[in-house]
Amino acid sequence: MNVCDLAVGGIAGLQPYVPGKPIEELQRQYGVKDVVKLASNESPIGPSQAAQAAIAKAIRDLTRYPDGNGFALKQVLAEKYQVEAGQITLGNGSNDVLELIARCFVSPEDEVIFSQHAFAVYPLVTQAIGATQVEVPATAFSHDLQAMQRAVTSKTKLIFIANPNNPTGTYLSGEQIYAFLQMIPDNVIVVLDEAYVEYGENEFNSIDWLQDFPNLIICRTFSKAYGLAGLRVGFALSHTDIADLLNRLRQPFNVNHFAMSAAIAALGDEDYLQRARQVNAQGMQQFMDGLTAMGLSYIPSRANFICVDVATDAADVYENMLRQGVIVRPIASYGLPNHLRISIGLQHENQRCLDALATSLNNEND
Amino acid sequence: MNVCDLAVGGIAGLQPYVPGKPIEELQRQYGVKDVVKLASNESPIGPSQAAQAAIAKAIRDLTRYPDGNGFALKQVLAEKYQVEAGQITLGNGSNDVLELIARCFVSPEDEVIFSQHAFAVYPLVTQAIGATQVEVPATAFSHDLQAMQRAVTSKTKLIFIANPNNPTGTYLSGEQIYAFLQMIPDNVIVVLDEAYVEYGENEFNSIDWLQDFPNLIICRTFSKAYGLAGLRVGFALSHTDIADLLNRLRQPFNVNHFAMSAAIAALGDEDYLQRARQVNAQGMQQFMDGLTAMGLSYIPSRANFICVDVATDAADVYENMLRQGVIVRPIASYGLPNHLRISIGLQHENQRCLDALATSLNNEND
Repeated sequence: MNVCDLAVGGIAGLQPYVPGKPIEELQRQYGVKDVVKLASNESPIGPSQAAQAAIAKAIRDLTRYPDGNGFALKQVLAEKYQVEAGQITLGNGSNDVLELIARCFVSPEDEVIFSQHAFAVYPLVTQAIGATQVEVPATAFSHDLQAMQRAVTSKTKLIFIANPNNPTGTYLSGEQIYAFLQMIPDNVIVVLDEAYVEYGENEFNSIDWLQDFPNLIICRTFSKAYGLAGLRVGFALSHTDIADLLNRLRQPFNVNHFAMSAAIAALGDEDYLQRARQVNAQGMQQFMDGLTAMGLSYIPSRANFICVDVATDAADVYENMLRQGVIVRPIASYGLPNHLRISIGLQHENQRCLDALATSLNNEND
Repeated sequence: MNVCDLAVGGIAGLQPYVPGKPIEELQRQYGVKDVVKLASNESPIGPSQAAQAAIAKAIRDLTRYPDGNGFALKQVLAEKYQVEAGQITLGNGSNDVLELIARCFVSPEDEVIFSQHAFAVYPLVTQAIGATQVEVPATAFSHDLQAMQRAVTSKTKLIFIANPNNPTGTYLSGEQIYAFLQMIPDNVIVVLDEAYVEYGENEFNSIDWLQDFPNLIICRTFSKAYGLAGLRVGFALSHTDIADLLNRLRQPFNVNHFAMSAAIAALGDEDYLQRARQVNAQGMQQFMDGLTAMGLSYIPSRANFICVDVATDAADVYENMLRQGVIVRPIASYGLPNHLRISIGLQHENQRCLDALATSLNNEND
């Protein structure tokens, strides 16, 4: 008996998500000491003081289960985003929320639509269910919303849109998305994944649209601009009926007590968020200037990372940079074999990365 | 359009798990100040010093994603339990592992077997998939393994056994379980949920059986004797083929960095575990003596809780105790409407609980 034969539908065929290489792993593998990791779109400015204080205080409750209803965090989120607490679903990172949504609404006979070059978790959660993946070709590395709308069939249950998109950093305007939502039947769930929204200029507030579209779910995370990736907390905003369903399926203690405490603190730490944005804007300029000076093209980004076209097999460049102690992200699995995704870091980290990239490309050309 | 109609299979029919009432919730609702919570089988002796130190150290990595492979924790677990790292699946609490197992192996047309009065998560994960729940009547509040074996059909994919069982605290011997495993076809997955194993006397080591039964999965948790419920970490041990499948389905960052760091520290803190066992044994004796003195019968328990038969509707007794500031657990949803499950606490907490129970029962009898 082979246990793989016992697994449901698409699970044996799952290719697990490949995360950015952890710093400790690079140190173990190559014996490199001074590592710069710009591979996972993490906040480069270190932990918020307010979050640290909240964690220190949370230690006294270590032995207690978290509040399974997330009462305190939902109160703060409801106030900040002007929604009812009943519209909120908390997740163990936004990955958890994305998976809950798929498991809640998608059966093996259904179709799920997402864009080429979009976040890897969308095909993964679809494959895990054994449903049909409908990947719509991108246009200029961005979602082609017209084509995505044309891809809707009677079997479509769910559409994922990432804005800004990971890994390309491309951005759709509020008008584009609103017009798209108007075209989609209300028995199709549309997920608007805004993991990187805090880095943008907020020209529109998608949360206002929840009143117009009962099939809309907005996902956000504390892992990026709020700097809490290590603790895992994200959330969805939706119609209360959808939130009620997701909360039935949700594991009762999916979000840990430390994550909720730190998230509450982070929401109150406006200075941290401002600094995160400022450092990101400066670093983005540094990369754009540096890459242009090297004659490399990149995809304009509204997030905290930038995709550069290294004009050769990026896997080799990635490996060479690893040996120089710089971790970036190869994205061949996203259909971009000549691109590397680089997270925006601190000025000296960005410089180390640009230097390592230059060295690597010079080696390639030797 | 009603979005509930869009939900998959059994989800709209899910009754969410009802956790023990959080202390803050009781304070909000009834204005009670000095609350004793003996409702969630949490460690009463406070956080381990070693775990606290590990958390303080982990703060520097707050902005980083956790190691998705859990390398460091798996190394320590593999060493302690004498298994390969490839046999381990880490979960966001053992709830996460239980759900992963069901999602990995069970389709809507399959059957899942568990005992009457067994842990509520087994029917919940089965219902979420839309599979058939086969609840086998208990014998003397414990699993009837013969009847469970007779319940196996060609549609059976998964059997859950909790040992000790929650909420009854009943215990199966190694001989009983081993004999059961020998009777089960190897295309049926058997989960042995040992969340409370650390409170027992270790007359047998179920991990040794993994060599004999490729269909066996052992689940454990850091939420009970190790005192880390607030951070969420549990794990499964199994054949590497099963672990490989579960790890494909697992969310890449399901276990947070703080949880893994604290778990490593907790595994090295033998003093904490010894103290947890000792306080539990003393408190268990205190409850057995106190309940006997009150003329109440209870189910003999090998875990860190005890189920008392209050010989009347336990919901009223529970409510009355709440108003006295003592939270215990009503278990009518487990088919035990006259029982309350009481977690073993510190001596003064146990006494407050016994006093509140006596007061409540005296009120009932007035």
